[in-house]
Amino acid sequence: MIRKRLILRFLGVLLLMIGISMVPAWMMAFYWVSAAQSSFLYSIVLVMLLGSASMLLPSVRGQEIGHREAFLIVSLGWLIAAAAAALPYWFYGMLAPQGAKYFPDFTAAYFESMSGLTTTGSTILPSIEDLPKSLLLWRSLTHWLGGMGIILLGIAILPFLGIGGMQLYRAEVPGPTADKLSPRIAETAKSLWIIYIMLTAVETLFLMFGGMSLFDAVCHSFATVATGGFSTRNISVEAYRSVYIEVVITVFMALAGMNFALHFFALRGELKKVWKNEEFRFYAFVIALWSVMIAWSLQAKGAYKSFWEGLRYSSFQVVSLLTSTGFSSCDFDVWRKHSSFAVFWVVLLMFIGGCAGSTGGGIKCVRIWLLMKAAYRELVRLIHPRMVKPVKIDGRAVPEEVLSSVAGFFALFLFVMGVSTLALTWYGMNLLSAFTAVAACIGNIGPGFDAVGPYQNFGFMPIGAKWILIFCMLLGRLELYTVLILFVPQFWRK
Amino acid sequence: MIRKRLILRFLGVLLLMIGISMVPAWMMAFYWVSAAQSSFLYSIVLVMLLGSASMLLPSVRGQEIGHREAFLIVSLGWLIAAAAAALPYWFYGMLAPQGAKYFPDFTAAYFESMSGLTTTGSTILPSIEDLPKSLLLWRSLTHWLGGMGIILLGIAILPFLGIGGMQLYRAEVPGPTADKLSPRIAETAKSLWIIYIMLTAVETLFLMFGGMSLFDAVCHSFATVATGGFSTRNISVEAYRSVYIEVVITVFMALAGMNFALHFFALRGELKKVWKNEEFRFYAFVIALWSVMIAWSLQAKGAYKSFWEGLRYSSFQVVSLLTSTGFSSCDFDVWRKHSSFAVFWVVLLMFIGGCAGSTGGGIKCVRIWLLMKAAYRELVRLIHPRMVKPVKIDGRAVPEEVLSSVAGFFALFLFVMGVSTLALTWYGMNLLSAFTAVAACIGNIGPGFDAVGPYQNFGFMPIGAKWILIFCMLLGRLELYTVLILFVPQFWRK
Repeated sequence: MIRKRLILRFLGVLLLMIGISMVPAWMMAFYWVSAAQSSFLYSIVLVMLLGSASMLLPSVRGQEIGHREAFLIVSLGWLIAAAAAALPYWFYGMLAPQGAKYFPDFTAAYFESMSGLTTTGSTILPSIEDLPKSLLLWRSLTHWLGGMGIILLGIAILPFLGIGGMQLYRAEVPGPTADKLSPRIAETAKSLWIIYIMLTAVETLFLMFGGMSLFDAVCHSFATVATGGFSTRNISVEAYRSVYIEVVITVFMALAGMNFALHFFALRGELKKVWKNEEFRFYAFVIALWSVMIAWSLQAKGAYKSFWEGLRYSSFQVVSLLTSTGFSSCDFDVWRKHSSFAVFWVVLLMFIGGCAGSTGGGIKCVRIWLLMKAAYRELVRLIHPRMVKPVKIDGRAVPEEVLSSVAGFFALFLFVMGVSTLALTWYGMNLLSAFTAVAACIGNIGPGFDAVGPYQNFGFMPIGAKWILIFCMLLGRLELYTVLILFVPQFWRK
Repeated sequence: MIRKRLILRFLGVLLLMIGISMVPAWMMAFYWVSAAQSSFLYSIVLVMLLGSASMLLPSVRGQEIGHREAFLIVSLGWLIAAAAAALPYWFYGMLAPQGAKYFPDFTAAYFESMSGLTTTGSTILPSIEDLPKSLLLWRSLTHWLGGMGIILLGIAILPFLGIGGMQLYRAEVPGPTADKLSPRIAETAKSLWIIYIMLTAVETLFLMFGGMSLFDAVCHSFATVATGGFSTRNISVEAYRSVYIEVVITVFMALAGMNFALHFFALRGELKKVWKNEEFRFYAFVIALWSVMIAWSLQAKGAYKSFWEGLRYSSFQVVSLLTSTGFSSCDFDVWRKHSSFAVFWVVLLMFIGGCAGSTGGGIKCVRIWLLMKAAYRELVRLIHPRMVKPVKIDGRAVPEEVLSSVAGFFALFLFVMGVSTLALTWYGMNLLSAFTAVAACIGNIGPGFDAVGPYQNFGFMPIGAKWILIFCMLLGRLELYTVLILFVPQFWRK
């Protein structure tokens, strides 16, 4: 049974939250007498009115949310939140004198908004620095809100819906232990958000210590802990030309790409538990191997003077792309001129993603790791057909249905990538641009190569192509299944 | 227990068979007073001597082959057969005045030989037409022998080793029904080979009817039914500029890419059984959809004057690449200039492959189809967690371990592709060339794009790159597991 009222109530609450979140950006615009002031005001009024309207529906307090309702709330929630969050951009495009240059139509505004809320970080903006600061704050804030939503989803909701292996994480976090979406979610969420806010605050301080303005520091911290990637500068983090700032952001990107449950353990002093976590080890191994291989090959081909200079740039880019943040500290598209070896390492990176239960996107380390283990088990099974052992992770046996769920996820991910890339090439994009654009969007990374390189933008794309990528961002962010399930006829049957 | 003697006996028989197979090519060289005559003679003597030596070992008649011995025999068999089959090339490279131009070293000879026996069809030859006809016949004959080996392997051996979902085909063919490699394999093999030989003979007649010389017709038939792809012409089938010949070859490629068990049914008049076969339907659907989409897009971009002209070229190329034959009736690398949409359809095709139990390579239609079904079931499982139904194919439930075996195969295939592409980019190849070279070799297809396009060759590659691709051909041909299992420590433990 799908209760429309219950769903509408939830969506209404979401709209109210989005509306309230716009207030700080509006105040900034008001204070600096920005052209964006009226855009925010109209947006807030419209969103709050719609949100309040749903409050007229009878209360749903105490009602248990069903499986199917949860899927609908999550998918529709993201779609509608992105529509609401797109309003300031859209209005700015219509009302401000220079606005149409940035946001020519609703599609552009919605792309930017969805890219923000899914913590993707792909932008359609030809130039970022000329935009009113209030809009820049709003961009970063959508990352931060989206990231918050993702943590809640990844640790407290998706595991209970049994999506693509996420059920592994059911018992990891203090909080709900029952099979249903229990009221204790609120508790879990609270602890997670405390960590999330702490990370943001600490990074802001560190960045300001490195000479960033408060505004830039806040915006970059929002984008970092959400593994989003929107910057306030045209050339992203490279603009600061500071090793210190690059190191700080690298560290916080890496922290944001970790399972947040591990932050609990770390705060409780159980560092051994962090280090023994197999997904974390795999994650750390990938960062180390990729950074070294890329630095070494770029240095060998003369792109950088020394291995260490190469490592400075490779490690930042590797952590940024692996965690699906998408900041850049150099135009890594230029690497294509030097070494296709380095470039292919980067492309492979786009298939891995962050850890489960983080704000990072992509296939996720744990899934790749489980797939590798399962593939190896197949080899052993051929040697000893009658002695099949379960695949284990962190010492615990992984149920077979989790493995097939992970395998299904992997196949579906590649399938969606293939079809979406096809669709983009239909619009005339070349293979590398189309493929990495899709990888960057479905993996919630941000930049790709060539036409969608880190210092390019997605603005040139036809409207149809933008919608395909918007759909990719949503699919990737909601672990595919949450969205695709809505297209299965059985979902709608009574 | 691994009995070295038993393995050596089998390899010896294999060498004798290769040696005998060289005799017709040698006789041709002798008759035409070719420079390759002595190359064949030396090769035959050497191979036969080595083969006979193993006959001195005690007989193994009546001994049951163990699982692990079967894996070793298959992998070593292909490696050693390729070494023996490379001798005529190698000797020709050393002895003939012009030889070094074609086969500068053993690597080149081994590449050509492995490409032949794995029915890949990638060549290192800069020019094919100048080579002695005896060597051209030998190239085509290696395809034909390799294809025969593959049918035996795919229907009679691999299913019983339980590799990557092939166990589904255990009961399909008249022949072995027990769980072990039974003596009835000989019977199955016989029926399969009759079909194989019939297809070859009929195609030869059809091609001669279209104006091909007997020699060309035999060589192309060998390469077609084995889904190999070596031609006797530099520009492959385009050289004949005949719609009739293209149609004949397309039909026979499509037949060779079908499960040979379906040929049994068809010969017995059970056409309904063929049409109801799900893998066949998927295969036919892919051919139709891909041909139409590619023809349409190329025609729209002005590469061809009409849709029908486009369809002529797209259908040939689609069947050739899907079945992993690798013939070309036009330089499809030129399509890159017109439409990256068409090119990406082609790239996707390289991931599908022929049907199981055919001579075709690649991931195979049945695996892709099963993966799609399994992914869809995951969606249904989310809606009804307690009502999980088995995935079915042809009305029968697919055991869960077959599904995880297929998923493991898929992941492993992509993993090996990723690592091999990395290795090729290390040699300085660009992404498209490196990636499609690997796809073409691991999928046993033949040509790729750009530097390895259909009218290019693999001769320019450094020796290391060639060995990587040789390994890819072997891996792909033996369904990955057969080879990779030898690298698992447990395989060698007593």
